[in-house]
Amino acid sequence: MEERMEDVLRVDKAEELDALFDFFRLIDREKLIGRQNYITDGSRKENDSEHAWHLAIMTILLAGYANEEIDVLHTVAMVLMHDLVEIYAGDTYAYDEKGKESQEEREMEAARKVYGTLPEKQGKYLMDLWLEFEERKTPEARFARTMDNLQPLMLNDATGGRSWMEHGIKFSQVLKRNEKTHLGSEVLWDYALNRLIRPNVEAGHLIKDVEE
Amino acid sequence: MEERMEDVLRVDKAEELDALFDFFRLIDREKLIGRQNYITDGSRKENDSEHAWHLAIMTILLAGYANEEIDVLHTVAMVLMHDLVEIYAGDTYAYDEKGKESQEEREMEAARKVYGTLPEKQGKYLMDLWLEFEERKTPEARFARTMDNLQPLMLNDATGGRSWMEHGIKFSQVLKRNEKTHLGSEVLWDYALNRLIRPNVEAGHLIKDVEE
Repeated sequence: MEERMEDVLRVDKAEELDALFDFFRLIDREKLIGRQNYITDGSRKENDSEHAWHLAIMTILLAGYANEEIDVLHTVAMVLMHDLVEIYAGDTYAYDEKGKESQEEREMEAARKVYGTLPEKQGKYLMDLWLEFEERKTPEARFARTMDNLQPLMLNDATGGRSWMEHGIKFSQVLKRNEKTHLGSEVLWDYALNRLIRPNVEAGHLIKDVEE
Repeated sequence: MEERMEDVLRVDKAEELDALFDFFRLIDREKLIGRQNYITDGSRKENDSEHAWHLAIMTILLAGYANEEIDVLHTVAMVLMHDLVEIYAGDTYAYDEKGKESQEEREMEAARKVYGTLPEKQGKYLMDLWLEFEERKTPEARFARTMDNLQPLMLNDATGGRSWMEHGIKFSQVLKRNEKTHLGSEVLWDYALNRLIRPNVEAGHLIKDVEE
């Protein structure tokens, strides 16, 4: 009896591992989802997986600047996986107002497809993690969203505002896009505004349509 | 007095943030460090940052398969940053025996350069994390190394052994390269051997120079 029970467990384990590895192979596609920001040397735009990697490291090293205490692992998991829905829904540029109209619906459908292939436990964990990020109601989600806004500001600043200039972005659009960035960290928003955004308004990389 | 004290703190914080953001901009270069494995659609090889992102997600979802209990956040931090030294030292292919002779020295020098730019506290944390990964003496390091070996096996298998075939890799080389992979997880090594490696020996994607 004991041996047969072990056999059953082994089969279950192999099935779970097959499903997990199918998922790991599926999410490899995130390496092909392009974003609008250029990497620091300006040679090309970055992709979703590179962006998520960058956010995760920033989260670990900047967690101490969060407004509220956060569970760092939970936040890191959130930033690592927040864009997986884009495997099916595609990236929606931060300043693409038309694309954003259908974004929510497209992404919910995509989330069901991406996470639906996983065993129930892991599928629910990842779906909840993504919804938490989207809803921004926990300290972890607020900080994750702050990271998600901060990293492209950094890349834009590092490349002379290149993607902003290509899209003719205005200062007011950046302020609107970032109206909740301070909710994750007042200190980091203050830093971003003064070191990453304002110098680009002064330099003409962002169209100065408002004073603040 | 109080106001001046705040000013001092503010300056310190800004200096620390400047150093951290310099680091975040520096590590952006990891997106340009090429690896030998192809991504699953075979369109191109992957880079270090994409690899690290993939490992971090695998670590979160596979931690339950570790031989010993692990601190998941610590392990995730390790896999996210284990290749940062390659910004200065370059990637050494797993089967490049000549490159591996000078690897240790090159990487230690690189580590001092990468982490030396950070404030002391963060610099020490990251240097220790990298040394821990290299020394493989903790459960977290053992599992991180298992992830680091498992992910390229998965990509090689998913692309019909493409990078193995391009380099004429033998089954015995893969076994030697993976002789410690089981130390992080017996279950995952068993899975990798039977599902990701052996089918490629049978299909002729790896040169069958040994039976086991």
